[in-house]
Amino acid sequence: MENAFGSILIISGPSGAGKSSLIEAAKDSIGDFYFSISTTTRPPRKGERNGVDYYFVDKETFEEEIRAGEFLEYAQVHGNYYGTSLKPVRKALEEGKLVIFDIDVQGHAIARERMGDLITSVFVTTPTLKELKRRLESRGTDDEETVQKRIQNAMVEIEYITAYDFLIINDDFEKALDSFIAVAKAARLKKGRKQALRFVNEWRGKSE
Amino acid sequence: MENAFGSILIISGPSGAGKSSLIEAAKDSIGDFYFSISTTTRPPRKGERNGVDYYFVDKETFEEEIRAGEFLEYAQVHGNYYGTSLKPVRKALEEGKLVIFDIDVQGHAIARERMGDLITSVFVTTPTLKELKRRLESRGTDDEETVQKRIQNAMVEIEYITAYDFLIINDDFEKALDSFIAVAKAARLKKGRKQALRFVNEWRGKSE
Repeated sequence: MENAFGSILIISGPSGAGKSSLIEAAKDSIGDFYFSISTTTRPPRKGERNGVDYYFVDKETFEEEIRAGEFLEYAQVHGNYYGTSLKPVRKALEEGKLVIFDIDVQGHAIARERMGDLITSVFVTTPTLKELKRRLESRGTDDEETVQKRIQNAMVEIEYITAYDFLIINDDFEKALDSFIAVAKAARLKKGRKQALRFVNEWRGKSE
Repeated sequence: MENAFGSILIISGPSGAGKSSLIEAAKDSIGDFYFSISTTTRPPRKGERNGVDYYFVDKETFEEEIRAGEFLEYAQVHGNYYGTSLKPVRKALEEGKLVIFDIDVQGHAIARERMGDLITSVFVTTPTLKELKRRLESRGTDDEETVQKRIQNAMVEIEYITAYDFLIINDDFEKALDSFIAVAKAARLKKGRKQALRFVNEWRGKSE
């Protein structure tokens, strides 16, 4: 029963707080999971692979899925669609997997609305804004303008931490990793309403 | 900051599901915590110690605390009061500790009302009612009547699992222990509303 139906872990937090590193480092400790990948209509860039970086689909397919209500959320940016398709999520849940979403505070709010009873959420941040700036500047992957935009976003996103179940302050990476693994393991123990009620019936039924 | 204010873990589930064994076995893995102890006006039995098994107080003290709103919940049984005093809980929270409550589904509901933003909750149960019966009978500490009463209680309590954050099905003890430790570690990452907002201010303030 324990794995009859999966559950969802949402991880949010400013770019530069270490979300990807935590997920990567936790991989071997948290068991089988499905990492939710965005779907887009923009063409793959060099080295990007379908089903790894994105699901790449054409505009017609994307719009069909929109009409079918298959997107958790979607947006159009520079004429291209980006969105979170629920199809692969449903499949993973039915296989009893933990589904991990790395999405922003808006995506979290929408997911809560639609699948709240399956969700455990965690917000990951640096100890301070100053430290976030330092990390973004020192990793050197973004130009000054992008860094500024990320900082602006972070200033807004941080307001939403009260909407999350758990807060990880990524100061010491090993400690943060231990915390993240605990949250991911706990997330597996989340039972949706339907699953919980089914369990109650089974629990009693098997008693005869 | 991370330990500036504590949080609460509530564990519930039928008598015989293994709650006490889990808490005992997890002790060394989950760091400093305060285990909430009930207060009672009944006299200590042989071997019972004040501050370990119960806080033993006289009737006047208990009733004074009731009037002062110091009890999370209380009941009178055979002329004696039993209750959960909030005083030691507040003290432990202020010391940044994790407070663990082993209380029933009613206690959980009341605690949610009063301190919901600090609480992570977990329901522990046997895989089946049949297995619960087997365990209660084989441990041989209760007479037939008490076993029957525990079974009746369990049949009612199991209905409440949807009110809990997490569900541990205690089939394999080592697996259940790993799950419980994960939940306890996650519970430490729960931030109350006040604490979260204070963190947001500090996070920004330290950036200058």
